[in-house]
Amino acid sequence: MKKYKKIEPVDTGSLVDKVEIKLLAFFKDNNLKPGDAIPKELEFAESLGVSRTVVREALLRLRTLGLVESKKHRGMILKQPDIINNFERILDPTLLGEDTLKQLFELRLILEMGMADFLFENRDQKDLDELEEIVEAEEATETGKIRFTLDKEIAFHGKLYQMSNNTTLQKFQSLLLPVFDYVYLKETKDTDLDDYHFSGGKFVTHRMLLENLKVGTPETFRSAMRRHLEPHFDHAFKKNGSK
Amino acid sequence: MKKYKKIEPVDTGSLVDKVEIKLLAFFKDNNLKPGDAIPKELEFAESLGVSRTVVREALLRLRTLGLVESKKHRGMILKQPDIINNFERILDPTLLGEDTLKQLFELRLILEMGMADFLFENRDQKDLDELEEIVEAEEATETGKIRFTLDKEIAFHGKLYQMSNNTTLQKFQSLLLPVFDYVYLKETKDTDLDDYHFSGGKFVTHRMLLENLKVGTPETFRSAMRRHLEPHFDHAFKKNGSK
Repeated sequence: MKKYKKIEPVDTGSLVDKVEIKLLAFFKDNNLKPGDAIPKELEFAESLGVSRTVVREALLRLRTLGLVESKKHRGMILKQPDIINNFERILDPTLLGEDTLKQLFELRLILEMGMADFLFENRDQKDLDELEEIVEAEEATETGKIRFTLDKEIAFHGKLYQMSNNTTLQKFQSLLLPVFDYVYLKETKDTDLDDYHFSGGKFVTHRMLLENLKVGTPETFRSAMRRHLEPHFDHAFKKNGSK
Repeated sequence: MKKYKKIEPVDTGSLVDKVEIKLLAFFKDNNLKPGDAIPKELEFAESLGVSRTVVREALLRLRTLGLVESKKHRGMILKQPDIINNFERILDPTLLGEDTLKQLFELRLILEMGMADFLFENRDQKDLDELEEIVEAEEATETGKIRFTLDKEIAFHGKLYQMSNNTTLQKFQSLLLPVFDYVYLKETKDTDLDDYHFSGGKFVTHRMLLENLKVGTPETFRSAMRRHLEPHFDHAFKKNGSK
C-alpha cells in the first residue's frame, strides 16, 4: 500500500494575517484617509486571489480594531481609529497578569509625576475652584489619619487628569481606573497606611498640592506630588515606610 | 392595495455586540482565568439563542483583541491579553487626526518627565556605560549646533525607557515612535531649532542628563529633563523660543 506523505492543513489563520497586512498596505499606498470609501470585499478577493471569506474575516478584524466601518449604501469606509476604545474591553484586572498590573500602576505614578507642566499651562480659576470644593469636602470628613479612601483619591486625581487638557490621557486614565482600584486595594492590604512613616517631614495632602497649583511652579508641584505619592513609590520599589 | 408598515432590517451588528458583552460577562462570572478552556461555539449559540455565525463573529472579535485563542485539539482558551499589541495596527500617524497626534506627543513629554524615579531606582553600571557610549558617539559627530537628529534622540531616550524596567511602558514607547517621528518632523519644519533661544542659561544636553543620572537625584534629573525638552514643551504650548 502506498505510503502517503502527511497532508498539511491549510493555515487559514495566517492567510487572514497576510490579507490584513495587504489591506493596511493598500490603504497606505493609496494615501486613503478616514472617511474614504474602500473597495468591495469581492474586489479585494479577486485582486488578492483569496476567498471572500478570508477577506471578510480580515475586514472584520479591522472593524473590531475600529479602522474601518460599514456605512449604509456606501459599503465600507476608513475610520479614524479610537486608540483608547480597544483598550476598554481587554483591561479587566482579573485577566491581566500581576506583572502587567504592577507596570500599569507604575505608569500611573509616571503620568502623575509627569503632567505638572500641562496643569500649570491649562489651569484656570474654574479648575482651582473645583479642586477647592473637592478638598473642602475631604476636610469636612477629616479623621486626622492619613487616609486614602478611594473615592477621594479618584475625585482629586481625576480632576488633575482633566486639567491636563489631553483627552487621550483622560480616557487612558479612566480606562486604567479598575486597574488602579485593584492595585490600590491590594496595596492597602499590604501596608497599613495609617501607620505609614514618611522618610522625613510630613505628608503632602491634597490641600498642599492645591496650594502648589495656585501659587507654585511645575517644579514645586512635582516635588509635592512626589512626596504625596511616596507610599505608592515605596510599594513599587518594595520599600516599607511603616514601623 | 394594502399599505405595509416599513419592515426594519435586523440589526446584526448589535446582536454581535450583545453576544460579545455576554461572553465577557460569562468569563467573569465563572471566574475564568487565562489558559482556561471556554465552551464551544455551538454551546454558546444554544445557550444564547443565537446563530453560530453570530457567536463566531463575536469570538473572532475577542480573538482579534487577543482575549481568546484557538488551540489545536483544545478548542478555544482564554488568553492574557497583550494590551499593547492592539495598538500596533492602529497607530499609523496618517490615520490619526492632528488632535490625537498632538496628544500622543504630549504624552511622550509627560512620560519622560515622570519616569525619573524609576530610572534612579533601576540604574546600574551597565546602563550608565551604555548611555556613555551613546553620548560619546554623539559627541564624536558634534557640529556645535543644537541638533536633534532623530536617530540620536531615539538611541538616548529609548535607552531611558528601557531603564524604566517597565516592559509595558517600553512597548508603548516603541509603538509610539512613528507618531513621535511624525510630530518631530512637523515640529522641525515649524521651528528652526538651530536658532532656538532658551529662556535662560544654556541647553541641557544628553551628556548633562547622563551626569545627572550618575550623581544627581530624581529631582535634579527632572529639572534637567524639563530644560532638555523645552523646545518641545514650547511647541506644545504654542510658545516660540526662536528669534
